[in-house]
Amino acid sequence: MTGPDSEFDLIRRYFAEPAGTSPDVRLGIGDDAALLGVQAGHELVVSVDTMVEGTHYFPDHPPASLGHKALAANLSDLAAMGADPLGAVLSLTLPSVDHDWLAAFSRGFLALAEQASVPLVGGDTTRGPGAISVTVLGQVPAGQALRRAGARPGDRLVVSGALGGAAAGLAFEKQRRAQGRPPDEESPDCARLFWPSARLALGRGLRNRARAVIDISDGLLADLGHLAAACGCGARVDWSQLPVDPLLEGQPEEMVRDCVLAGGEDYELLFALPPTEPLELLSLSVRTSLTVIGEFTSGSDIEVVDAHGARLDVARRGHDHFAG
Amino acid sequence: MTGPDSEFDLIRRYFAEPAGTSPDVRLGIGDDAALLGVQAGHELVVSVDTMVEGTHYFPDHPPASLGHKALAANLSDLAAMGADPLGAVLSLTLPSVDHDWLAAFSRGFLALAEQASVPLVGGDTTRGPGAISVTVLGQVPAGQALRRAGARPGDRLVVSGALGGAAAGLAFEKQRRAQGRPPDEESPDCARLFWPSARLALGRGLRNRARAVIDISDGLLADLGHLAAACGCGARVDWSQLPVDPLLEGQPEEMVRDCVLAGGEDYELLFALPPTEPLELLSLSVRTSLTVIGEFTSGSDIEVVDAHGARLDVARRGHDHFAG
Repeated sequence: MTGPDSEFDLIRRYFAEPAGTSPDVRLGIGDDAALLGVQAGHELVVSVDTMVEGTHYFPDHPPASLGHKALAANLSDLAAMGADPLGAVLSLTLPSVDHDWLAAFSRGFLALAEQASVPLVGGDTTRGPGAISVTVLGQVPAGQALRRAGARPGDRLVVSGALGGAAAGLAFEKQRRAQGRPPDEESPDCARLFWPSARLALGRGLRNRARAVIDISDGLLADLGHLAAACGCGARVDWSQLPVDPLLEGQPEEMVRDCVLAGGEDYELLFALPPTEPLELLSLSVRTSLTVIGEFTSGSDIEVVDAHGARLDVARRGHDHFAG
Repeated sequence: MTGPDSEFDLIRRYFAEPAGTSPDVRLGIGDDAALLGVQAGHELVVSVDTMVEGTHYFPDHPPASLGHKALAANLSDLAAMGADPLGAVLSLTLPSVDHDWLAAFSRGFLALAEQASVPLVGGDTTRGPGAISVTVLGQVPAGQALRRAGARPGDRLVVSGALGGAAAGLAFEKQRRAQGRPPDEESPDCARLFWPSARLALGRGLRNRARAVIDISDGLLADLGHLAAACGCGARVDWSQLPVDPLLEGQPEEMVRDCVLAGGEDYELLFALPPTEPLELLSLSVRTSLTVIGEFTSGSDIEVVDAHGARLDVARRGHDHFAG
């Protein structure tokens, strides 16, 4: 029976966008599958990311932010490949049908989808423990995708924006909870946590410029570890150069270090820029602040040094949902 | 910390296929996203399907079958669009890391992936309540995708294979459980339940022949309802013509009717064939038994009639994970 709360109708009701939002979408929600056009001479880019209630978000996480964030995390992977978004599919598992929640969630999801030109083309809803799985599709001119492998010793290590803001937001959010106050999605000190951005324009700008790229979803040191390993390099990070998020101003040194080096969900891009590539021009053209925070080295060590070159003792930490 | 059980390593360890299994895969598991080629003049087909522990499968469902089934259900959506598989991404949420389970699950998944030429190109593992989400990608010559809309009154209603086998298997499986016996993935009476096939060759064969196509995942009457609604038609089903799965031989009439009309997970294709299109040739060319089980009508009713044309009183039922 296809009733008002049926699987079929929930997707139709909350997530079907007006037809014709993108010429690439030949067939959207409602058939066995969606149909998309991929431009000639391009490669298809695909990535999946799942957020699980209790692991990645609290049951009372503001739903509009959750919809936004589930898509933003995936768009960040497209950005890290230098891709243009094509479309997304959403699989939503919910303990029950809560229409207020669904309306807010879909509002957050679809607002970002429209802003980033990534139409929702398919979906699936199921009853069960809360989980949100998004698969994004993008396209990139053939051969120009940004990969993790490719940095060489001597390349500058560059990061976009500022670091530690999402982790700081999470710390503030936890303080609020400890005080018995509800989450506040409008609070400026949680803006990076609740409303992350994906660096899509920067990703496009790095095509044919950066030698290796990753997005920071698991923390600077963890993702730098992945990047360096893929390149067969080591890396040296200059602590004094790191762009610390303004949210962390006046916080204890230990918290700052923890948020900046190991905080997840900043969704900034971390990349290797050859010495010949002008940084300032790139920064201007993509309208994003870019900071050289160190360099790639021969060997395999990841080290963090202070302004005098002395090695800091830092644990290499980051989000890891099974080891954690 | 990227330890032996980390998110990163689980995908690498159990699901990374040897490089170069398909010329379409330019970059597989291990970067921020995968890269695929889509042939010129083709459209991209994308579909997602999630199975949740407790809703779609028991915690002790044999893991190799589960891996197979999660992919097969998605491939069936590609078949229903007439698409050729390109690749799949898998998001796996697990309560804990059980290496025996993972080894068996990935064996089942990858065996079907190889057989159907659909390489796994990306994945994500997370700790949490059990859930398996698969997104499949395929390609189809532009303009030739099979859609749900398009049938006209007078078109023959055709189904592939036999119906009710998966539901019968589930009934037998429940009997076994009631008797305290463990699930047996080798049992012939659960073959349709544990090892479903997707009708990919038939789907390809229906391009430019069928006017409207859907796969039967929610039960004959439920999916026929979707098909007829998309076409703005009604349909008449002749009960005496329905291809009943041999597993149901000798079972009570009520069980047979329930399994054949409302049983889910058969993954056969149901389609509208214009009167001019020869059925026998098609059946031979795709090596699949095809049965005319009724016709599309004007109006909007779905009715089931007996051999004398008398209308049978059947409830329109089917799987619906929220209404159920």
